[in-house]
Amino acid sequence: MGIIDSVNSPKDVKKLNNAELKRLAGEIRELVIQSVAKNGGHLASNLGIVEITLALFKVFDLPEDKIVYDVGHQCYVHKILTGRKDQMHTLRTYNGLAGFPKIQESEYDAFNTGHSGNSVSVAMAMAEANRLNKKDAFAIAVIGDGSLSNGLAFEGLNNAGREKSNLVVILNDNEMSISKNVGSLSNYLSMLRTAPKYSGLKKKIQDGLGQMKGLGTGITKALSVTKDGFKHLLIPGTVFEALGFTYVGPIDGHDIDLLTTVLEHIKTINKPVLVHTITKKGKGYGFAENNPAAYHGTGAFDVKKPLFLEQKKDSYAYALDETLCQQAEKNSDIVGICAAMEHAVGMSKFHKNFPDRFYDAGICEGHAVTFAAGMAASGKIPIVAIYSTFMQRAYDNIVTDVALTNQHVIFCMDRAGLSGEDGETHHGIFDVPFMLHIPNMTVLTPRSPEVLKLALETAINDIKGPVAIRYPKSGMCTLPAPDDIFKAELLREGEKVTVITMSKMTEVVKDIEFDGDHINLNSIKPIDKDTIIKSALKTKRVITVEDNIIKGGMGELVEDVLRGLDISVIKLGIDDKYVTHGKVNQLLEELGLSAQDIKKVILQ
Amino acid sequence: MGIIDSVNSPKDVKKLNNAELKRLAGEIRELVIQSVAKNGGHLASNLGIVEITLALFKVFDLPEDKIVYDVGHQCYVHKILTGRKDQMHTLRTYNGLAGFPKIQESEYDAFNTGHSGNSVSVAMAMAEANRLNKKDAFAIAVIGDGSLSNGLAFEGLNNAGREKSNLVVILNDNEMSISKNVGSLSNYLSMLRTAPKYSGLKKKIQDGLGQMKGLGTGITKALSVTKDGFKHLLIPGTVFEALGFTYVGPIDGHDIDLLTTVLEHIKTINKPVLVHTITKKGKGYGFAENNPAAYHGTGAFDVKKPLFLEQKKDSYAYALDETLCQQAEKNSDIVGICAAMEHAVGMSKFHKNFPDRFYDAGICEGHAVTFAAGMAASGKIPIVAIYSTFMQRAYDNIVTDVALTNQHVIFCMDRAGLSGEDGETHHGIFDVPFMLHIPNMTVLTPRSPEVLKLALETAINDIKGPVAIRYPKSGMCTLPAPDDIFKAELLREGEKVTVITMSKMTEVVKDIEFDGDHINLNSIKPIDKDTIIKSALKTKRVITVEDNIIKGGMGELVEDVLRGLDISVIKLGIDDKYVTHGKVNQLLEELGLSAQDIKKVILQ
Repeated sequence: MGIIDSVNSPKDVKKLNNAELKRLAGEIRELVIQSVAKNGGHLASNLGIVEITLALFKVFDLPEDKIVYDVGHQCYVHKILTGRKDQMHTLRTYNGLAGFPKIQESEYDAFNTGHSGNSVSVAMAMAEANRLNKKDAFAIAVIGDGSLSNGLAFEGLNNAGREKSNLVVILNDNEMSISKNVGSLSNYLSMLRTAPKYSGLKKKIQDGLGQMKGLGTGITKALSVTKDGFKHLLIPGTVFEALGFTYVGPIDGHDIDLLTTVLEHIKTINKPVLVHTITKKGKGYGFAENNPAAYHGTGAFDVKKPLFLEQKKDSYAYALDETLCQQAEKNSDIVGICAAMEHAVGMSKFHKNFPDRFYDAGICEGHAVTFAAGMAASGKIPIVAIYSTFMQRAYDNIVTDVALTNQHVIFCMDRAGLSGEDGETHHGIFDVPFMLHIPNMTVLTPRSPEVLKLALETAINDIKGPVAIRYPKSGMCTLPAPDDIFKAELLREGEKVTVITMSKMTEVVKDIEFDGDHINLNSIKPIDKDTIIKSALKTKRVITVEDNIIKGGMGELVEDVLRGLDISVIKLGIDDKYVTHGKVNQLLEELGLSAQDIKKVILQ
Repeated sequence: MGIIDSVNSPKDVKKLNNAELKRLAGEIRELVIQSVAKNGGHLASNLGIVEITLALFKVFDLPEDKIVYDVGHQCYVHKILTGRKDQMHTLRTYNGLAGFPKIQESEYDAFNTGHSGNSVSVAMAMAEANRLNKKDAFAIAVIGDGSLSNGLAFEGLNNAGREKSNLVVILNDNEMSISKNVGSLSNYLSMLRTAPKYSGLKKKIQDGLGQMKGLGTGITKALSVTKDGFKHLLIPGTVFEALGFTYVGPIDGHDIDLLTTVLEHIKTINKPVLVHTITKKGKGYGFAENNPAAYHGTGAFDVKKPLFLEQKKDSYAYALDETLCQQAEKNSDIVGICAAMEHAVGMSKFHKNFPDRFYDAGICEGHAVTFAAGMAASGKIPIVAIYSTFMQRAYDNIVTDVALTNQHVIFCMDRAGLSGEDGETHHGIFDVPFMLHIPNMTVLTPRSPEVLKLALETAINDIKGPVAIRYPKSGMCTLPAPDDIFKAELLREGEKVTVITMSKMTEVVKDIEFDGDHINLNSIKPIDKDTIIKSALKTKRVITVEDNIIKGGMGELVEDVLRGLDISVIKLGIDDKYVTHGKVNQLLEELGLSAQDIKKVILQ
């Protein structure tokens, strides 16, 4: 029997001494590895944050004190410590534990997170609410150095620093986003990590100042004018101090003794504090320590064999990388831009082959898109590959910087539609509604990696202005690609109904037996009116099926095309709701979008 | 005859000596004041940037070197110097000069701006494109200290600092956004402004270090390990240095001699440089210097009389402020949040009466919304007042932080629909499409300030979850407010047609003579199906009119309501295009949405 068996709530953690906490850390790592090996999930980040989580639970009082985990995929340890350890085997499964914090799941989950950079703003709000309510509780944001590069995190820090509330920011610095971090801030953090010697230097200068002849009065005078200036001059973490935070660190984020001591001390400071902790992603599991990127987010795996980053050859990401490289070979104006996920989106080979024309913006989707707009305005052809759900973060950049002046920027949005186990914050179900209403935008919806290749080639060579290409994680109809991306494909012919699909839903519908036309759209803006009208006039009955929010979606376009023709249109899709986590097929069933469900509607 | 008469292109500026440039500065100020007094526009920021613009033109070579003006409202001087001085009397008028940079208007306008914070990303892209093209030209971002607080600007700086391209960022520090700046970064800049003494201190410390006994070896050793650390310790502007920039300043942004000298020097540095200039908003025009906020954006005015910030009593902003104060008096959970525009959106009185419950996020729309989500999750009721067009910047924050967990956050979006003279980047024509497709969202569209009051009261007291309230700058149908915001209003009855309108368009339609029902919707989600169906079954013909993008808009909702009823629906609105600047009525005409145009459609 382990210590873990006695821990059923945060109160139980508080009873443990540091030696017991250290043993508990090992047991937690074991459970995390087992759970992720079984169901897939985020491993490396959770192994890296065990001691920080334990120290927070030991020192603070949940649920009065609130912990907001940035992005949230590092919440497994938190879930284990808050009465959910026995459900860890259900992690990320349909009706099981979510892979991210969820208010609905536990009173100890302070906020649903999933997208990067919001933790400081949320925790600041909670600290301010406490202050307004005259409540003496703390709000704690736990944020990685990758998320820190996001503009929202900067806005949060800049706003929070001026308040006098009980806000603690734990900077979990592991030198990684999903891949290796980029940006100057990341270099700055590296510099801080040399702190021991750095602090020594500071001490020497301070001592030295005391010894300096004739400087005494000058210093005193200067200090009276530029007190803050002097502080910035001599204190490490000056960037955070400039943002109004008391900076503490860097400290070893795996040293429970040190962590608890520092956190206890921090509770006595009545203003925002940033604690800079250094951790190792994958800590305690050799394979993950050696290759944390491979163990960032993973499917089920064998604990005894190492994982490696590899792109499946039948994936959309692989097709993107190959096509991009082929096109870039021919056209030197092509540049590739991603946001901290070069492997996942399919830009690794491009990066390797064209290092000078590859840009990883870090977790800065807004910058990535606006940077692309500037590139296009300079005659370059930027391909911006960002998951559908994260492209939401650049909506205004697309509207204002790209589409307004009709810049030739190509957006490649993987994980469109239902992304599966990552759940609510990770489905790409808004991309069609938010892209379709943007003027000048072409919207392509390839049904297979081969069609993605055609879409990208067409977007690069034959389309002016912005192009959005959206495609699912998996799910493909592997019929040979057409010649023309804009022409609707009549995949099957019949008499009684016209079923119009795109993306993933084409695969779902193609094996349903029915007497009707099945039309696949690889482009929805422009939309091939002739094919749709011809079929609809024959069958008199149209069903559209899309794996995104219906409002603002493809079905409405089809209705527009058929206006005045006296044809009934049924629009299937996601009807004004968020979608939980689980296997894509389970989610399609819940939404009434499984093959059986669609068949029922067809046969009605 | 002034010097200005001889200046018809940037080349002419380069011929002038500094004495002539100083005289030219005065002449430009005169022209700017005249132009804005006649047509309205942005005065204070343009008066503040005269010398900076002249120095840039003197030192750099346009159009090979590119200047990207952040936000862009400070581009009047640039327009005067690039052959457009004779068109300044047409500024901001229909078919006249735009109030913002426009690629379509001049080869010297490098990029269309309008929303804050994008200049660094765009200029970085241009500098990188030059580098890839082996072109030895410069890209220059001109950004105010207010815009610098925007997360996008931070992302840009953090990404740009690591490249070795010819990028220059001119920080135009006037201690203002539209109103007084907020945030810690702003305090940091204030600290830098004490630079003379600060630099003196630095010098003394460096000299002192040389004198210190026994420290020599220690320093040398420490330097070899922490070279960068040492630099950050001793150099002002360390935050910018941390982001990879060479920091120069602060310098007087009105001193042409100094500006040209510094800029000439900067051309020799082959890496990103940030020049910190201190300027005075409204410089050279006493009334504007004394009250720059009143002269930020203004209508036509009398040059000889001072302007003051005042809220018209029949404005939506006034109604918001009054209602907010009334509700806040009764309910201590209400908090108010704005983004650097407290006066314009109508929160000044609330700020004054409830200083502890008022938050100005600065130009950080993303943070403002996510902060609101955290507040709501803590039991507060946040009212977030941001212009419609700027709310676009928080789309993902609304989707992911607010609506996903159904937080009770109320969005008040002024300047919805056509905002008029500010043009393309400032119209609020996307709000309906992007809000309507977000699950859990209620969308209210009051037709008058009095109805806004009802909308806000209802949103605070009777609605759960997020609420978006959108309303125009002007344009109101002043019939008495109804009792129920959700019930469609039958403003007129007739037989042959049903015209359904909302917001500004209700005012436009209400005076058209026709034999039909006129229905106004103060709520479009939920939408009052019964009233619409009843009327449509009577008239058999429906026309919807909205002042936003049609795709994803209100008309499609009406079509959904009427599906299967064999009723023709014509949707009027903005058909998949951006809209230029001019008076709202002129723009409505261009769009086929004037009263006459709508009447024609009705009578068809």
